[in-house]
Amino acid sequence: MAATARTLNTTGSTSVVLDAIRAAGTISRVGIAQVTGLTGATVSTVVRKLLDAHLVIEIGRAESTGGKPRVLLELNPTARYAVGVHLDHGAITYAVTNLAGAPVARLARPGPGNASPADVVIRMADEINMLVESIGIARDKLLGLGLVSPGPLSSRAGMHLTPPFMRSWEDFPLDTQLADVAQLPVLLENDATAAAIGEYWSGGTQREESFAALYLGTGLGAGIVINGTAYRGTSGNAGEIGHTCANIDGPECWCGARGCFEALAGPAAVVNEAYSDPRIVTAAALDTLGDHTPITQRFAAIARASRMGDTPSRQLLERSARYVGVAAQSVANLLDVRMLVLTGSSFAAASHIYVPAIRDTLAASFFARDNHAVHVQLSQSAETAPAIGAAALVLQAQFVPERSTSLAAKVRSSPHVSELSTLSP
Amino acid sequence: MAATARTLNTTGSTSVVLDAIRAAGTISRVGIAQVTGLTGATVSTVVRKLLDAHLVIEIGRAESTGGKPRVLLELNPTARYAVGVHLDHGAITYAVTNLAGAPVARLARPGPGNASPADVVIRMADEINMLVESIGIARDKLLGLGLVSPGPLSSRAGMHLTPPFMRSWEDFPLDTQLADVAQLPVLLENDATAAAIGEYWSGGTQREESFAALYLGTGLGAGIVINGTAYRGTSGNAGEIGHTCANIDGPECWCGARGCFEALAGPAAVVNEAYSDPRIVTAAALDTLGDHTPITQRFAAIARASRMGDTPSRQLLERSARYVGVAAQSVANLLDVRMLVLTGSSFAAASHIYVPAIRDTLAASFFARDNHAVHVQLSQSAETAPAIGAAALVLQAQFVPERSTSLAAKVRSSPHVSELSTLSP
Repeated sequence: MAATARTLNTTGSTSVVLDAIRAAGTISRVGIAQVTGLTGATVSTVVRKLLDAHLVIEIGRAESTGGKPRVLLELNPTARYAVGVHLDHGAITYAVTNLAGAPVARLARPGPGNASPADVVIRMADEINMLVESIGIARDKLLGLGLVSPGPLSSRAGMHLTPPFMRSWEDFPLDTQLADVAQLPVLLENDATAAAIGEYWSGGTQREESFAALYLGTGLGAGIVINGTAYRGTSGNAGEIGHTCANIDGPECWCGARGCFEALAGPAAVVNEAYSDPRIVTAAALDTLGDHTPITQRFAAIARASRMGDTPSRQLLERSARYVGVAAQSVANLLDVRMLVLTGSSFAAASHIYVPAIRDTLAASFFARDNHAVHVQLSQSAETAPAIGAAALVLQAQFVPERSTSLAAKVRSSPHVSELSTLSP
Repeated sequence: MAATARTLNTTGSTSVVLDAIRAAGTISRVGIAQVTGLTGATVSTVVRKLLDAHLVIEIGRAESTGGKPRVLLELNPTARYAVGVHLDHGAITYAVTNLAGAPVARLARPGPGNASPADVVIRMADEINMLVESIGIARDKLLGLGLVSPGPLSSRAGMHLTPPFMRSWEDFPLDTQLADVAQLPVLLENDATAAAIGEYWSGGTQREESFAALYLGTGLGAGIVINGTAYRGTSGNAGEIGHTCANIDGPECWCGARGCFEALAGPAAVVNEAYSDPRIVTAAALDTLGDHTPITQRFAAIARASRMGDTPSRQLLERSARYVGVAAQSVANLLDVRMLVLTGSSFAAASHIYVPAIRDTLAASFFARDNHAVHVQLSQSAETAPAIGAAALVLQAQFVPERSTSLAAKVRSSPHVSELSTLSP
């Protein structure tokens, strides 16, 4: 890839210290040593380097319990920025976040439509440049670009995207092309996982460390966060709740399985059924929409009709919500989480139906309900969570390069052991 | 609890070093520093203490790439032992493992039947003493006792067990009672999670770091291991795949949901259906079994009839296996794992039906099959994996007390920060 890497070039200890500061908000050197298990000497050396690089700032002193007052440290939020791009059939959404993960700019633009992937990549690079310039950020402060799109991710030709509703993009080398044109390093992620990371970094999960984000956009998926880190699985395709079984004797899904939740009750299935009911076509004005109108916009039209009081539209959505409630319960039963965040544009559009339906299902029959409730909440940024998460991905790659790897795996991957060793002074 | 704790009293660095040695098998001090990120000085101090306590031994020197030869370290496997007990309706199974997790003794005894919980606890303590004495292990070398039983775990009265087929045990304080009588610290776990840990520690997963163990005993569950550590969820009830939906309009399950896999296709459902088919009753000689015969033994009788060529028995099991295959696929789709281990006595009894059925389902319709296959294998110790895992639990509690907690959680739990700090010299 031709893009210049603008990474922080952090080694193990540096990442660990940076993440400890990010997680704490404000913390002293002694606190960092306690939390990370690193020696005081190592912490001092690393913090000195971070101060010199302006990545961390000293913000005053705390009273100490005996001894001299401790200097408090914080991330310097404006030291670096990351860009997130959510490429979906219906829209391309951009977000820029600072080093602390807070969004400083957002932009929603039309989806790719029938334009060629190469042309869309050029447009995305232009729109990224425009957004970054508009808020006055120097390009050398950009760490990189996180790019999310509907799954499944494919590893056939590197890590390229083959979303079901964007067949012309199949096997297009999106990551390397965008990196070349935008001159930034690119990380890929699927939409539901990025949305979950976005919720976590933006504080939408109220500091819950393990949760699932259910994502209803064009399809249905789930992003899984365990102990503050995205769980991706072997090939980045974890969380495919839309392709688990709602009915073992149901119709075949495009994925090859039978009776999948997405095939029976996802937004595409809802839209499909809506067209067979003339009352809904009229109430939602579906016949006024152009041929290239994305599924998410057609679904939103049905949701609007339901909110306006159209009973057939409401009943159609309620049927879908019953299935999605059971899918949500499957996720909760398998992961035993305390929190589900509902995110994505289709949940946002029809929250009046889905939020109560999912809450009712879990209250009635979540397996471990005698032990704890499952808190179900609609995301505060359901439309932009994937783009914010895409940017957070870039930050997280700097902060926690090793958290997902166990000691046993590290021992075995001996060629990489040097990358994980303590920062040389 | 009156039991004397015989823990290793390890702090953060000690656990990390011990786990690095366990994971590597054989490793030098320099290697430990590289893998853990601890300084050379800290590693030297901790290793000295471990050598003095005979927990670790020096086993020779390795050629170094320049510089002096490095001393290699290993766990001293006979330094400590742990006991695992699997209390199930059909049997009580015991295992003793050494510090490296290898089983050194196993014992299978009859299930609790109708005996009172208090009497069964006394019997278990006797049987543990007998087993430990029979292999000549001094009691002060026992770290503790891991106890597993069918879920759900309840936190209503501490962490007591309320398995569905053992109602008389509901709210009986099993952990504290057994700790009192056996004079050992007790850790509780559910059967599927313990089985997964047992597979991992006994090498049955071929060093795969993330996988699921499907457990078919009396019920159907899954144990989840992520990066070498059991994933338990908020209340220890993760992996309840038996209570996810196979048919949204199916019959109500005892758990409160509809159409659960366990209700439609678990061993109890199979046994129930078998009694309604006189051909199977005869072929499997079900009418010769006593009233108190556990479900698992009735199920095994049907499996034997199928192996002997009885077609109705085979068809009944094949119907169940079709459901279990779809449940396995749900786990694989949600977690995107490369390996599923089939464990528990019912998989062992009817492996000729379940193993090919699950393999076929995943080969045909696992979501990310274009990226990687899911390897499905029958456990080599399907009957004893939970007991081995229960013992491994006790070892793991010594080695990795903090791995499941993220830095952010550590920062917030400030009262405990001191426990996680570097070992004082």
